[in-house]
Amino acid sequence: MTTLRLALLQHACVEDPTRNLDHAITLMRDAARRDAQLLVTQELFTSRYFPQVESEAGFSLAESIPGPTTSRLSDLARELHVHIAASLFEKRAPGVFHNTSVLIDPAGRIAGKYRKMHIPDDPGFYEKFYFTPGDLGFQVVPVDGANVGTLICWDQWFPEAARLTCLQGAQLLLYPTAIAHCKGEDETERARQRDAWRTIQRSHAIANGVFVVAVNRIGAEGELDFFGSSFVAAPGGEVIAEAPRDSEQVLIVDCDLTKLDAARQIWPFFRDRRIDAYAELTQRWASRD
Amino acid sequence: MTTLRLALLQHACVEDPTRNLDHAITLMRDAARRDAQLLVTQELFTSRYFPQVESEAGFSLAESIPGPTTSRLSDLARELHVHIAASLFEKRAPGVFHNTSVLIDPAGRIAGKYRKMHIPDDPGFYEKFYFTPGDLGFQVVPVDGANVGTLICWDQWFPEAARLTCLQGAQLLLYPTAIAHCKGEDETERARQRDAWRTIQRSHAIANGVFVVAVNRIGAEGELDFFGSSFVAAPGGEVIAEAPRDSEQVLIVDCDLTKLDAARQIWPFFRDRRIDAYAELTQRWASRD
Repeated sequence: MTTLRLALLQHACVEDPTRNLDHAITLMRDAARRDAQLLVTQELFTSRYFPQVESEAGFSLAESIPGPTTSRLSDLARELHVHIAASLFEKRAPGVFHNTSVLIDPAGRIAGKYRKMHIPDDPGFYEKFYFTPGDLGFQVVPVDGANVGTLICWDQWFPEAARLTCLQGAQLLLYPTAIAHCKGEDETERARQRDAWRTIQRSHAIANGVFVVAVNRIGAEGELDFFGSSFVAAPGGEVIAEAPRDSEQVLIVDCDLTKLDAARQIWPFFRDRRIDAYAELTQRWASRD
Repeated sequence: MTTLRLALLQHACVEDPTRNLDHAITLMRDAARRDAQLLVTQELFTSRYFPQVESEAGFSLAESIPGPTTSRLSDLARELHVHIAASLFEKRAPGVFHNTSVLIDPAGRIAGKYRKMHIPDDPGFYEKFYFTPGDLGFQVVPVDGANVGTLICWDQWFPEAARLTCLQGAQLLLYPTAIAHCKGEDETERARQRDAWRTIQRSHAIANGVFVVAVNRIGAEGELDFFGSSFVAAPGGEVIAEAPRDSEQVLIVDCDLTKLDAARQIWPFFRDRRIDAYAELTQRWASRD
Protein backbone atom coordinates (compact mmCIF):
# COMPACT_ATOMS: atom_id res chain seq x y z
CA MET A 1 0.00 0.00 0.00
CA THR A 2 1.57 3.30 -1.07
CA THR A 3 -1.42 5.60 -0.64
CA LEU A 4 -3.16 6.44 2.61
CA ARG A 5 -6.60 8.04 2.43
CA LEU A 6 -7.23 10.53 5.22
CA ALA A 7 -10.35 12.25 6.43
CA LEU A 8 -9.96 15.57 8.24
CA LEU A 9 -13.03 16.28 10.34
CA GLN A 10 -13.61 20.04 10.63
CA HIS A 11 -16.72 21.18 12.47
CA ALA A 12 -18.19 23.53 15.07
CA CYS A 13 -18.82 22.47 18.66
CA VAL A 14 -21.78 23.03 20.96
CA GLU A 15 -21.91 23.06 24.74
CA ASP A 16 -23.03 19.44 25.19
CA PRO A 17 -20.13 16.94 24.76
CA THR A 18 -22.47 14.06 23.87
CA ARG A 19 -23.87 16.00 20.95
CA ASN A 20 -20.37 16.83 19.72
CA LEU A 21 -19.30 13.22 19.90
CA ASP A 22 -22.49 12.08 18.17
CA HIS A 23 -21.94 14.64 15.44
CA ALA A 24 -18.30 13.66 14.95
CA ILE A 25 -19.37 10.02 14.66
CA THR A 26 -21.82 11.02 11.93
CA LEU A 27 -18.93 12.67 10.08
CA MET A 28 -16.77 9.59 10.66
CA ARG A 29 -19.41 7.36 9.09
CA ASP A 30 -19.46 9.67 6.08
CA ALA A 31 -15.65 9.48 5.87
CA ALA A 32 -15.68 5.69 6.06
CA ARG A 33 -18.25 5.50 3.26
CA ARG A 34 -15.75 7.47 1.19
CA ASP A 35 -13.09 4.86 1.99
CA ALA A 36 -10.95 6.94 4.31
CA GLN A 37 -8.50 4.79 6.27
CA LEU A 38 -7.45 7.30 8.93
CA LEU A 39 -9.99 9.72 10.42
CA VAL A 40 -8.47 12.72 12.19
CA THR A 41 -10.41 14.89 14.63
CA GLN A 42 -9.77 18.51 15.49
CA GLU A 43 -8.27 19.23 18.91
CA LEU A 44 -10.55 18.54 21.90
CA PHE A 45 -13.36 17.79 19.47
CA THR A 46 -15.90 16.68 22.09
CA SER A 47 -16.18 20.10 23.73
CA ARG A 48 -16.08 23.79 23.21
CA TYR A 49 -12.61 25.22 23.68
CA PHE A 50 -12.83 25.48 27.47
CA PRO A 51 -9.23 26.80 28.00
CA GLN A 52 -10.31 30.24 26.83
CA VAL A 53 -11.02 30.84 30.51
CA GLU A 54 -9.46 29.41 33.66
CA SER A 55 -12.26 27.70 35.56
CA GLU A 56 -12.27 24.63 37.74
CA ALA A 57 -15.50 23.64 36.02
CA GLY A 58 -13.46 22.88 32.91
CA PHE A 59 -11.86 19.87 34.56
CA SER A 60 -15.23 18.11 34.63
CA LEU A 61 -14.86 17.61 30.86
CA ALA A 62 -11.85 15.33 31.31
CA GLU A 63 -12.08 11.57 31.28
CA SER A 64 -9.78 8.61 31.64
CA ILE A 65 -8.10 6.88 28.71
CA PRO A 66 -9.40 4.28 28.07
CA GLY A 67 -12.77 5.72 29.04
CA PRO A 68 -16.26 6.39 27.77
CA THR A 69 -15.21 8.27 24.63
CA THR A 70 -12.46 5.88 23.58
CA SER A 71 -14.91 3.06 24.21
CA ARG A 72 -17.41 4.49 21.72
CA LEU A 73 -14.64 5.25 19.23
CA SER A 74 -13.18 1.75 19.58
CA ASP A 75 -16.56 0.24 18.80
CA LEU A 76 -16.86 2.53 15.79
CA ALA A 77 -13.35 1.77 14.50
CA ARG A 78 -14.13 -1.95 14.67
CA GLU A 79 -17.45 -1.49 12.92
CA LEU A 80 -16.09 0.74 10.14
CA HIS A 81 -12.65 -0.90 9.83
CA VAL A 82 -10.85 2.42 10.14
CA HIS A 83 -8.14 4.07 12.20
CA ILE A 84 -9.23 7.05 14.29
CA ALA A 85 -6.87 9.74 15.63
CA ALA A 86 -8.86 11.42 18.40
CA SER A 87 -7.88 14.42 20.50
CA LEU A 88 -9.12 14.16 24.08
CA PHE A 89 -8.90 15.81 27.51
CA GLU A 90 -7.33 13.11 29.66
CA LYS A 91 -7.72 12.74 33.39
CA ARG A 92 -4.74 10.69 34.43
CA ALA A 93 -5.03 11.20 38.18
CA PRO A 94 -6.52 13.81 40.48
CA GLY A 95 -4.61 16.99 39.60
CA VAL A 96 -2.85 15.40 36.61
CA PHE A 97 -4.56 16.18 33.34
CA HIS A 98 -3.21 16.03 29.78
CA ASN A 99 -4.11 17.17 26.28
CA THR A 100 -3.86 13.76 24.66
CA SER A 101 -4.23 12.13 21.25
CA VAL A 102 -5.12 8.49 20.93
CA LEU A 103 -4.80 6.46 17.79
CA ILE A 104 -7.36 3.67 17.67
CA ASP A 105 -6.84 0.85 15.19
CA PRO A 106 -9.48 -1.15 13.26
CA ALA A 107 -9.43 -3.80 15.96
CA GLY A 108 -10.59 -1.12 18.39
CA ARG A 109 -7.31 -1.12 20.30
CA ILE A 110 -5.53 2.03 21.46
CA ALA A 111 -2.45 1.66 19.26
CA GLY A 112 -0.83 4.92 20.28
CA LYS A 113 -1.17 7.60 22.92
CA TYR A 114 0.56 10.98 22.74
CA ARG A 115 0.42 13.69 25.37
CA LYS A 116 0.89 17.23 24.04
CA MET A 117 4.46 18.22 24.82
CA HIS A 118 4.30 21.99 24.26
CA ILE A 119 1.55 23.75 26.21
CA PRO A 120 0.54 27.30 25.27
CA ASP A 121 -0.62 30.05 27.54
CA ASP A 122 -1.63 33.35 26.06
CA PRO A 123 -4.75 35.49 26.30
CA GLY A 124 -7.71 33.27 25.43
CA PHE A 125 -5.63 30.07 25.43
CA TYR A 126 -4.92 29.36 29.09
CA GLU A 127 -3.83 25.77 28.59
CA LYS A 128 -1.12 25.74 31.24
CA PHE A 129 -3.88 25.88 33.85
CA TYR A 130 -5.38 22.62 32.60
CA PHE A 131 -2.71 20.50 30.97
CA THR A 132 0.40 18.97 32.45
CA PRO A 133 3.09 18.89 29.74
CA GLY A 134 3.36 15.49 28.08
CA ASP A 135 5.78 12.89 29.40
CA LEU A 136 5.56 10.25 26.68
CA GLY A 137 7.96 11.91 24.24
CA PHE A 138 7.34 12.07 20.51
CA GLN A 139 5.31 9.28 18.96
CA VAL A 140 4.96 7.36 15.73
CA VAL A 141 2.11 4.89 15.22
CA PRO A 142 1.76 2.48 12.28
CA VAL A 143 -1.41 2.94 10.20
CA ASP A 144 -1.87 0.55 7.28
CA GLY A 145 1.88 0.48 6.65
CA ALA A 146 2.41 4.21 7.10
CA ASN A 147 4.14 5.78 10.10
CA VAL A 148 1.95 8.48 11.59
CA GLY A 149 3.34 11.09 13.97
CA THR A 150 0.78 12.34 16.48
CA LEU A 151 1.50 15.93 17.48
CA ILE A 152 -1.00 18.50 18.78
CA CYS A 153 -1.62 22.19 18.01
CA TRP A 154 1.01 24.36 19.82
CA ASP A 155 3.59 21.66 18.97
CA GLN A 156 3.24 22.93 15.39
CA TRP A 157 5.29 26.06 16.17
CA PHE A 158 8.31 24.03 17.27
CA PRO A 159 10.57 22.65 14.51
CA GLU A 160 12.14 20.42 17.15
CA ALA A 161 8.88 18.49 17.64
CA ALA A 162 8.46 17.87 13.94
CA ARG A 163 12.08 16.82 13.51
CA LEU A 164 12.12 14.46 16.48
CA THR A 165 8.93 12.79 15.28
CA CYS A 166 10.36 12.41 11.79
CA LEU A 167 13.61 10.97 13.13
CA GLN A 168 11.41 8.15 14.39
CA GLY A 169 10.27 7.50 10.85
CA ALA A 170 7.08 9.54 10.66
CA GLN A 171 5.73 9.91 7.13
CA LEU A 172 2.78 12.05 8.16
CA LEU A 173 2.53 14.56 10.99
CA LEU A 174 -0.94 15.12 12.44
CA TYR A 175 -1.76 18.41 14.16
CA PRO A 176 -5.27 18.46 15.63
CA THR A 177 -5.66 22.14 16.40
CA ALA A 178 -7.80 24.79 18.05
CA ILE A 179 -6.61 28.10 16.67
CA ALA A 180 -8.75 31.20 16.49
CA HIS A 181 -8.79 34.89 15.94
CA CYS A 182 -9.61 37.00 18.95
CA LYS A 183 -12.62 39.26 18.49
CA GLY A 184 -11.45 42.77 17.73
CA GLU A 185 -8.41 41.77 15.68
CA ASP A 186 -8.56 43.38 12.26
CA GLU A 187 -8.49 41.41 9.03
CA THR A 188 -4.84 42.30 8.30
CA GLU A 189 -3.74 40.78 11.58
CA ARG A 190 -6.04 37.80 11.05
CA ALA A 191 -4.58 37.12 7.62
CA ARG A 192 -1.06 37.41 9.00
CA GLN A 193 -1.79 34.87 11.72
CA ARG A 194 -3.48 32.39 9.40
CA ASP A 195 -0.59 32.66 6.99
CA ALA A 196 2.01 32.19 9.75
CA TRP A 197 0.13 29.13 10.99
CA ARG A 198 0.09 27.63 7.50
CA THR A 199 3.68 28.60 6.79
CA ILE A 200 5.23 27.09 9.91
CA GLN A 201 3.48 23.78 9.26
CA ARG A 202 4.33 23.75 5.55
CA SER A 203 7.93 24.32 6.62
CA HIS A 204 7.89 21.03 8.54
CA ALA A 205 6.80 19.27 5.34
CA ILE A 206 9.72 20.92 3.53
CA ALA A 207 12.41 20.45 6.17
CA ASN A 208 11.47 16.82 6.77
CA GLY A 209 10.01 15.63 3.47
CA VAL A 210 6.74 14.46 5.05
CA PHE A 211 3.02 15.05 4.79
CA VAL A 212 1.62 17.52 7.31
CA VAL A 213 -2.04 17.34 8.33
CA ALA A 214 -3.68 20.18 10.29
CA VAL A 215 -7.29 19.92 11.48
CA ASN A 216 -8.86 23.00 13.05
CA ARG A 217 -12.38 23.73 14.29
CA ILE A 218 -14.76 26.42 13.05
CA GLY A 219 -17.27 28.65 14.76
CA ALA A 220 -17.46 31.50 17.24
CA GLU A 221 -17.04 30.53 20.89
CA GLY A 222 -17.00 33.36 23.41
CA GLU A 223 -14.20 35.74 22.46
CA LEU A 224 -12.70 33.42 19.85
CA ASP A 225 -13.45 32.94 16.14
CA PHE A 226 -12.01 29.58 15.12
CA PHE A 227 -10.86 29.75 11.54
CA GLY A 228 -10.99 26.22 10.18
CA SER A 229 -8.70 26.15 7.11
CA SER A 230 -7.73 22.55 7.82
CA PHE A 231 -5.21 21.41 5.23
CA VAL A 232 -2.73 18.80 4.06
CA ALA A 233 0.74 19.72 2.80
CA ALA A 234 2.75 17.27 0.73
CA PRO A 235 6.46 16.55 1.20
CA GLY A 236 8.01 19.65 -0.35
CA GLY A 237 5.40 21.85 1.27
CA GLU A 238 2.69 22.36 -1.34
CA VAL A 239 -0.86 22.42 0.02
CA ILE A 240 -2.77 19.61 -1.71
CA ALA A 241 -6.13 20.02 0.01
CA GLU A 242 -7.74 22.70 2.13
CA ALA A 243 -11.06 23.24 3.89
CA PRO A 244 -12.88 26.58 4.13
CA ARG A 245 -12.54 29.01 7.03
CA ASP A 246 -16.12 28.94 8.15
CA SER A 247 -17.98 25.79 7.19
CA GLU A 248 -18.02 22.16 8.19
CA GLN A 249 -16.12 19.74 6.02
CA VAL A 250 -15.05 16.13 5.86
CA LEU A 251 -11.91 16.66 3.80
CA ILE A 252 -10.81 13.47 2.05
CA VAL A 253 -7.16 13.43 0.96
CA ASP A 254 -5.05 10.71 -0.64
CA CYS A 255 -1.43 10.80 0.51
CA ASP A 256 0.94 9.14 -1.94
CA LEU A 257 3.69 7.89 0.33
CA THR A 258 6.09 7.35 -2.57
CA LYS A 259 6.49 11.14 -2.60
CA LEU A 260 8.65 10.94 0.51
CA ASP A 261 11.53 9.21 -1.23
CA ALA A 262 11.37 11.65 -4.13
CA ALA A 263 11.35 14.69 -1.86
CA ARG A 264 14.21 13.48 0.30
CA GLN A 265 16.38 12.44 -2.61
CA ILE A 266 16.07 15.81 -4.33
CA TRP A 267 16.70 17.70 -1.09
CA PRO A 268 18.58 15.30 1.20
CA PHE A 269 18.52 17.30 4.40
CA PHE A 270 18.67 14.29 6.68
CA ARG A 271 22.03 13.40 5.13
CA ASP A 272 23.53 16.76 6.02
CA ARG A 273 22.29 17.52 9.52
CA ARG A 274 25.30 18.60 11.64
CA ILE A 275 24.49 16.38 14.57
CA ASP A 276 27.96 17.04 15.99
CA ALA A 277 26.99 20.71 16.42
CA TYR A 278 23.43 20.51 17.73
CA ALA A 279 24.01 19.82 21.43
CA GLU A 280 23.01 23.34 22.47
CA LEU A 281 19.45 22.70 21.24
CA THR A 282 18.84 21.23 24.69
CA GLN A 283 19.59 24.60 26.28
CA ARG A 284 17.08 27.32 27.12
CA TRP A 285 19.42 30.03 25.86
CA ALA A 286 23.08 30.09 24.84
CA SER A 287 25.29 29.20 27.75
CA ARG A 288 27.38 32.33 27.33
CA ASP A 289 24.50 34.50 28.49
CA MET B 1 19.25 52.62 17.83
CA THR B 2 16.18 50.47 17.17
CA THR B 3 16.26 50.35 13.37
CA LEU B 4 18.96 48.78 11.24
CA ARG B 5 19.08 49.72 7.56
CA LEU B 6 20.20 46.84 5.35
CA ALA B 7 21.26 46.70 1.73
CA LEU B 8 20.85 43.39 -0.09
CA LEU B 9 23.14 43.28 -3.12
CA GLN B 10 21.59 41.14 -5.87
CA HIS B 11 23.45 40.97 -9.17
CA ALA B 12 24.75 38.72 -11.94
CA CYS B 13 28.36 37.53 -12.08
CA VAL B 14 30.83 37.33 -14.95
CA GLU B 15 33.87 35.12 -15.37
CA ASP B 16 36.43 37.62 -14.10
CA PRO B 17 36.48 37.89 -10.26
CA THR B 18 37.98 41.38 -10.30
CA ARG B 19 35.11 42.70 -12.39
CA ASN B 20 32.60 41.11 -9.99
CA LEU B 21 34.28 42.65 -6.98
CA ASP B 22 34.51 46.03 -8.71
CA HIS B 23 30.84 45.83 -9.60
CA ALA B 24 29.81 44.83 -6.07
CA ILE B 25 31.80 47.77 -4.71
CA THR B 26 29.90 50.08 -7.04
CA LEU B 27 26.65 48.70 -5.60
CA MET B 28 28.02 49.09 -2.07
CA ARG B 29 28.77 52.76 -2.72
CA ASP B 30 25.21 53.19 -3.90
CA ALA B 31 23.93 51.46 -0.76
CA ALA B 32 26.05 53.66 1.50
CA ARG B 33 24.73 56.79 -0.23
CA ARG B 34 21.28 55.54 0.74
CA ASP B 35 22.42 55.29 4.37
CA ALA B 36 22.51 51.51 4.63
CA GLN B 37 24.41 50.35 7.71
CA LEU B 38 24.90 46.68 6.83
CA LEU B 39 25.62 45.64 3.23
CA VAL B 40 24.98 41.96 2.50
CA THR B 41 26.41 40.19 -0.53
CA GLN B 42 25.01 37.17 -2.28
CA GLU B 43 26.87 33.87 -1.79
CA LEU B 44 30.35 33.67 -3.41
CA PHE B 45 29.69 37.04 -4.99
CA THR B 46 33.15 37.46 -6.56
CA SER B 47 32.78 34.55 -8.96
CA ARG B 48 30.40 32.57 -11.08
CA TYR B 49 28.95 29.62 -9.22
CA PHE B 50 31.89 27.29 -9.85
CA PRO B 51 30.48 24.31 -7.83
CA GLN B 52 28.11 23.47 -10.66
CA VAL B 53 30.96 21.26 -11.87
CA GLU B 54 33.69 19.42 -10.00
CA SER B 55 36.97 20.75 -11.34
CA GLU B 56 40.31 21.31 -9.68
CA ALA B 57 40.47 24.62 -11.50
CA GLY B 58 37.75 25.91 -9.19
CA PHE B 59 40.12 25.91 -6.24
CA SER B 60 42.15 28.69 -7.85
CA LEU B 61 39.31 31.07 -6.97
CA ALA B 62 39.88 30.62 -3.24
CA GLU B 63 41.88 33.04 -1.14
CA SER B 64 42.97 33.42 2.43
CA ILE B 65 41.02 35.37 5.04
CA PRO B 66 42.30 38.00 5.62
CA GLY B 67 43.37 38.28 2.00
CA PRO B 68 43.10 40.48 -1.06
CA THR B 69 39.30 40.67 -1.12
CA THR B 70 38.85 41.32 2.59
CA SER B 71 41.58 43.93 2.29
CA ARG B 72 39.65 45.86 -0.37
CA LEU B 73 36.40 45.46 1.57
CA SER B 74 38.02 46.60 4.82
CA ASP B 75 39.26 49.76 3.10
CA LEU B 76 35.78 50.33 1.71
CA ALA B 77 34.05 49.74 5.06
CA ARG B 78 36.34 52.30 6.67
CA GLU B 79 35.77 54.80 3.89
CA LEU B 80 31.98 54.42 3.85
CA HIS B 81 31.51 53.81 7.60
CA VAL B 82 29.45 50.67 6.98
CA HIS B 83 29.38 47.04 7.98
CA ILE B 84 29.84 44.52 5.16
CA ALA B 85 28.77 40.87 5.31
CA ALA B 86 30.73 39.22 2.49
CA SER B 87 30.52 35.62 1.30
CA LEU B 88 33.90 34.27 0.18
CA PHE B 89 35.68 31.09 -0.89
CA GLU B 90 38.29 30.61 1.82
CA LYS B 91 41.58 28.78 1.43
CA ARG B 92 42.53 27.86 4.97
CA ALA B 93 45.33 25.44 4.14
CA PRO B 94 46.27 23.24 1.19
CA GLY B 95 43.33 20.86 0.87
CA VAL B 96 41.22 22.70 3.47
CA PHE B 97 38.76 25.11 1.89
CA HIS B 98 35.59 26.63 3.32
CA ASN B 99 32.51 28.51 2.20
CA THR B 100 32.91 31.44 4.57
CA SER B 101 31.16 34.66 5.52
CA VAL B 102 33.07 37.52 7.03
CA LEU B 103 31.52 40.47 8.76
CA ILE B 104 33.67 43.57 8.43
CA ASP B 105 33.00 46.50 10.73
CA PRO B 106 33.34 50.25 9.98
CA ALA B 107 36.85 50.21 11.41
CA GLY B 108 37.77 47.72 8.69
CA ARG B 109 38.23 44.86 11.15
CA ILE B 110 36.95 41.35 10.57
CA ALA B 111 34.43 41.30 13.41
CA GLY B 112 33.04 37.87 12.62
CA LYS B 113 33.86 34.81 10.55
CA TYR B 114 31.41 31.97 9.91
CA ARG B 115 32.14 28.82 7.95
CA LYS B 116 29.09 27.24 6.30
CA MET B 117 28.08 24.32 8.47
CA HIS B 118 25.73 22.44 6.12
CA ILE B 119 27.24 21.63 2.73
CA PRO B 120 24.97 20.56 -0.15
CA ASP B 121 25.71 18.13 -2.90
CA ASP B 122 23.16 17.53 -5.59
CA PRO B 123 23.21 17.72 -9.37
CA GLY B 124 24.61 21.12 -10.32
CA PHE B 125 25.59 22.00 -6.74
CA TYR B 126 28.66 19.86 -6.03
CA GLU B 127 29.78 21.76 -2.95
CA LYS B 128 31.03 18.77 -0.98
CA PHE B 129 33.92 18.56 -3.46
CA TYR B 130 35.09 22.05 -2.59
CA PHE B 131 34.04 22.94 0.92
CA THR B 132 35.03 21.37 4.21
CA PRO B 133 32.08 21.63 6.60
CA GLY B 134 32.45 24.56 8.99
CA ASP B 135 34.06 24.10 12.39
CA LEU B 136 33.34 27.45 14.01
CA GLY B 137 29.79 26.67 15.10
CA PHE B 138 26.95 29.14 14.80
CA GLN B 139 27.80 32.81 14.99
CA VAL B 140 26.35 36.10 16.12
CA VAL B 141 28.11 39.39 15.40
CA PRO B 142 27.13 42.81 16.80
CA VAL B 143 26.25 45.42 14.17
CA ASP B 144 25.33 48.88 15.46
CA GLY B 145 23.69 47.36 18.52
CA ALA B 146 21.93 44.53 16.64
CA ASN B 147 22.95 40.87 16.86
CA VAL B 148 23.43 39.48 13.37
CA GLY B 149 23.53 35.74 12.71
CA THR B 150 25.67 34.79 9.74
CA LEU B 151 24.37 31.65 8.06
CA ILE B 152 24.87 30.62 4.43
CA CYS B 153 22.56 29.15 1.77
CA TRP B 154 22.03 25.40 2.43
CA ASP B 155 21.92 26.20 6.17
CA GLN B 156 18.54 27.76 5.39
CA TRP B 157 16.90 24.34 5.06
CA PHE B 158 17.86 23.34 8.62
CA PRO B 159 15.66 24.66 11.44
CA GLU B 160 18.42 23.61 13.83
CA ALA B 161 20.85 26.17 12.37
CA ALA B 162 18.35 29.01 12.69
CA ARG B 163 17.41 28.02 16.23
CA LEU B 164 20.99 27.64 17.45
CA THR B 165 21.92 31.02 16.02
CA CYS B 166 18.87 32.62 17.65
CA LEU B 167 19.66 31.00 21.00
CA GLN B 168 22.82 33.10 20.86
CA GLY B 169 20.71 36.20 20.63
CA ALA B 170 20.51 36.73 16.87
CA GLN B 171 17.93 39.34 15.87
CA LEU B 172 18.59 38.97 12.14
CA LEU B 173 19.61 35.85 10.21
CA LEU B 174 21.58 36.45 7.01
CA TYR B 175 21.49 33.85 4.25
CA PRO B 176 23.73 34.76 1.31
CA THR B 177 22.55 32.27 -1.27
CA ALA B 178 23.18 30.78 -4.70
CA ILE B 179 19.99 28.99 -5.65
CA ALA B 180 18.92 28.31 -9.19
CA HIS B 181 16.58 26.43 -11.40
CA CYS B 182 18.12 23.76 -13.56
CA LYS B 183 17.55 24.22 -17.28
CA GLY B 184 14.73 21.96 -18.42
CA GLU B 185 12.67 22.22 -15.24
CA ASP B 186 9.16 23.38 -16.06
CA GLU B 187 7.61 26.50 -14.56
CA THR B 188 5.42 24.51 -12.15
CA GLU B 189 8.46 22.87 -10.60
CA ARG B 190 10.31 26.19 -10.60
CA ALA B 191 7.48 27.92 -8.79
CA ARG B 192 7.30 25.08 -6.27
CA GLN B 193 11.02 25.35 -5.53
CA ARG B 194 11.01 29.13 -5.19
CA ASP B 195 8.04 28.92 -2.87
CA ALA B 196 9.64 26.20 -0.73
CA TRP B 197 12.82 28.29 -0.49
CA ARG B 198 10.85 31.30 0.66
CA THR B 199 8.64 29.29 2.98
CA ILE B 200 11.39 27.53 4.89
CA GLN B 201 13.16 30.84 5.54
CA ARG B 202 9.96 32.63 6.50
CA SER B 203 9.37 29.78 8.95
CA HIS B 204 12.62 30.64 10.75
CA ALA B 205 11.33 34.20 11.19
CA ILE B 206 8.11 32.78 12.65
CA ALA B 207 9.60 30.07 14.88
CA ASN B 208 12.27 32.39 16.27
CA GLY B 209 10.73 35.85 16.09
CA VAL B 210 13.62 37.31 14.07
CA PHE B 211 14.28 39.05 10.79
CA VAL B 212 15.45 36.76 7.98
CA VAL B 213 17.50 38.14 5.11
CA ALA B 214 18.09 36.11 1.95
CA VAL B 215 20.33 37.41 -0.84
CA ASN B 216 20.45 35.43 -4.08
CA ARG B 217 22.18 36.06 -7.39
CA ILE B 218 20.58 36.42 -10.82
CA GLY B 219 21.59 35.34 -14.29
CA ALA B 220 22.12 32.21 -16.36
CA GLU B 221 25.38 30.38 -15.71
CA GLY B 222 25.88 27.12 -17.59
CA GLU B 223 23.02 24.80 -16.74
CA LEU B 224 21.68 27.00 -13.94
CA ASP B 225 19.23 29.90 -13.96
CA PHE B 226 19.68 31.81 -10.70
CA PHE B 227 16.41 33.26 -9.62
CA GLY B 228 17.19 36.30 -7.48
CA SER B 229 14.07 37.01 -5.40
CA SER B 230 16.18 38.27 -2.50
CA PHE B 231 13.92 39.20 0.38
CA VAL B 232 13.58 40.20 4.01
CA ALA B 233 11.00 38.60 6.30
CA ALA B 234 9.99 40.30 9.55
CA PRO B 235 9.57 38.53 12.90
CA GLY B 236 6.23 36.78 12.39
CA GLY B 237 7.20 35.81 8.85
CA GLU B 238 5.73 38.49 6.60
CA VAL B 239 7.89 39.48 3.63
CA ILE B 240 8.56 43.22 3.95
CA ALA B 241 10.80 43.68 0.90
CA GLU B 242 11.61 41.61 -2.16
CA ALA B 243 13.78 41.94 -5.26
CA PRO B 244 12.80 40.72 -8.74
CA ARG B 245 13.75 37.33 -10.15
CA ASP B 246 15.81 38.56 -13.03
CA SER B 247 17.27 42.01 -12.53
CA GLU B 248 19.97 43.62 -10.46
CA GLN B 249 18.90 45.40 -7.33
CA VAL B 250 20.28 47.12 -4.29
CA LEU B 251 17.38 46.42 -1.95
CA ILE B 252 17.31 48.85 0.98
CA VAL B 253 15.30 47.63 3.96
CA ASP B 254 14.77 49.14 7.41
CA CYS B 255 14.50 46.51 10.13
CA ASP B 256 12.66 47.77 13.21
CA LEU B 257 14.24 45.72 15.98
CA THR B 258 11.46 46.55 18.45
CA LYS B 259 9.34 44.07 16.47
CA LEU B 260 11.22 41.18 18.09
CA ASP B 261 9.82 41.80 21.54
CA ALA B 262 6.31 42.15 20.17
CA ALA B 263 6.55 38.95 18.14
CA ARG B 264 7.99 36.89 20.96
CA GLN B 265 5.52 38.16 23.55
CA ILE B 266 2.52 37.31 21.38
CA TRP B 267 3.90 33.88 20.51
CA PRO B 268 6.37 32.99 23.27
CA PHE B 269 7.89 29.88 21.76
CA PHE B 270 11.23 30.25 23.53
CA ARG B 271 9.38 29.99 26.85
CA ASP B 272 7.86 26.64 25.94
CA ARG B 273 10.66 24.70 24.24
CA ARG B 274 10.80 21.21 25.80
CA ILE B 275 14.54 21.20 26.29
CA ASP B 276 14.23 18.15 28.53
CA ALA B 277 12.97 16.17 25.52
CA TYR B 278 15.25 17.34 22.70
CA ALA B 279 18.36 15.23 23.29
CA GLU B 280 17.66 13.00 20.29
CA LEU B 281 18.17 15.97 17.94
CA THR B 282 21.84 15.10 18.09
CA GLN B 283 21.11 11.70 16.53
CA ARG B 284 21.19 10.84 12.83
CA TRP B 285 18.04 8.74 13.15
CA ALA B 286 16.02 7.45 16.08
CA SER B 287 18.07 5.06 18.15
CA ARG B 288 15.47 2.35 17.93
CA ASP B 289 16.15 1.81 14.22
